[in-house]
Amino acid sequence: MKRTERVGAIVKILSSHPNRVFSLSYFCKLFQAAKSTVSEDVSAAKKLLAKLELGSIETTAGAKGGIRFIPTVSSLRRENLLNELAERLSDGSRILGGGFLYTSDLMFDSHIINNVAEMFAEKFQDSGADYVVTIETKGIPVAYMTAHMLNLPLVVVRRESRISEGSTVSINYFSGSSDRIQKLSLAKRAVEPGKKAIIIDDFMRAGGSIKGIMDVLSEFDVKVVGTGVVIASLEPRKKVIDEYYPLLYLGKVDEQKKTIEVIRPSEYAVFGDDGVN
Amino acid sequence: MKRTERVGAIVKILSSHPNRVFSLSYFCKLFQAAKSTVSEDVSAAKKLLAKLELGSIETTAGAKGGIRFIPTVSSLRRENLLNELAERLSDGSRILGGGFLYTSDLMFDSHIINNVAEMFAEKFQDSGADYVVTIETKGIPVAYMTAHMLNLPLVVVRRESRISEGSTVSINYFSGSSDRIQKLSLAKRAVEPGKKAIIIDDFMRAGGSIKGIMDVLSEFDVKVVGTGVVIASLEPRKKVIDEYYPLLYLGKVDEQKKTIEVIRPSEYAVFGDDGVN
Repeated sequence: MKRTERVGAIVKILSSHPNRVFSLSYFCKLFQAAKSTVSEDVSAAKKLLAKLELGSIETTAGAKGGIRFIPTVSSLRRENLLNELAERLSDGSRILGGGFLYTSDLMFDSHIINNVAEMFAEKFQDSGADYVVTIETKGIPVAYMTAHMLNLPLVVVRRESRISEGSTVSINYFSGSSDRIQKLSLAKRAVEPGKKAIIIDDFMRAGGSIKGIMDVLSEFDVKVVGTGVVIASLEPRKKVIDEYYPLLYLGKVDEQKKTIEVIRPSEYAVFGDDGVN
Repeated sequence: MKRTERVGAIVKILSSHPNRVFSLSYFCKLFQAAKSTVSEDVSAAKKLLAKLELGSIETTAGAKGGIRFIPTVSSLRRENLLNELAERLSDGSRILGGGFLYTSDLMFDSHIINNVAEMFAEKFQDSGADYVVTIETKGIPVAYMTAHMLNLPLVVVRRESRISEGSTVSINYFSGSSDRIQKLSLAKRAVEPGKKAIIIDDFMRAGGSIKGIMDVLSEFDVKVVGTGVVIASLEPRKKVIDEYYPLLYLGKVDEQKKTIEVIRPSEYAVFGDDGVN
């Protein structure tokens, strides 16, 4: 195989399996090439990804060493995506009444969600998490893709314990948006005690559901080391959780005028609230 | 940029967005290169992907023409994946009683699910579908990835109509596995009438849920042009739907001996049943 072909193959294989370590010998065998040749190929792959800001390749030394692809999001791509998401989110026809918005089309759109997941993966790359945890239903695609990008298992907390989950641990929590007590349950075999998790969800109002996930995880002695939400509501200013990473804030929804205010976290600082990181 | 870099970038960009058409001019602008140069780069990318069986690049002519990446699964990768899935599925510790198996770890594992989704994408590449439809919860990752591979929107049928879905259409259906009437609902704005859909789900017993999805889609005048399930139960032999594409069959589950029989569709023919395609 030619250099061009080997480099292309390295880019394809590594980027299809983000954060998974491949040994150099894997590629030596695949290409029937010497280690020195493959090393040069990897350098070329690294350079081209860096030049076009398409991600990075990290080399780790040692017995378990090798190379892995780490997703990165260029500031231009980030800007374009947040613009697109903000524009689509502020479409007045999403207003359902009662302050609710229809967002399923966004949360199930792979173009939006894959990019959002890359942003979360970049943010939580060094969090040391063992799991990505979410709650059914609309947060599953973004949490799944974030888990894929970080090469971690996805864990889904259920609203009802189902027979196909086996033994479960359940908690009750107060949901501000539905104004009532809700139940969460997690299969006993879904996580191991002593591990760490990040929580990824599509939407957060006061943070009751996220707090509920934290509570159920603490029953398993699993520590939450980060929380990412695609959209956080500006109100209530005071959230029931301390730290979270939102991509966009949802401001005033005017049912009469059919307008939806969408705010960047960077613009939120001017509101001068201390309840948010 | 050098040839090696341009080819690597083409492979990365196309394969990150399967089935999305990119114009040649997009790459000319990105690389600041002539059309003839980019054409040669694309040929090189096509060749290397074909040589290593990592997918194919298709060129379409005309005003809306361009190039797109089409996921393919080599017979070796297919064999390896089905072996791995069958082995993990036949682990006796999955048995929960009542014939139920714990499968969340498999359905939320991106290594397994991304490969499974590529197989479904390959199967339904030419189905003409406009949507990939599933039902919450465990089928969402595989359906989402299949939708991503086919560059189609994902539609999720809910078991309960939620306020954040807006107006919904609901139907009742008989679920064989829970032995009772269950409800399905779909948001009115989720699909457009007259379109086509494929259904993707994690597990099928008699096919009641799939039939339910078909019924709710027919309320929207959406035609189902294909159904893929990761695992289908061998029993009951007679399904309530005619055609489906399973990756594996689940045979006898022996709670005493803690054994789970897993059968390949290719081996199923020897059973000589006519109820299955």
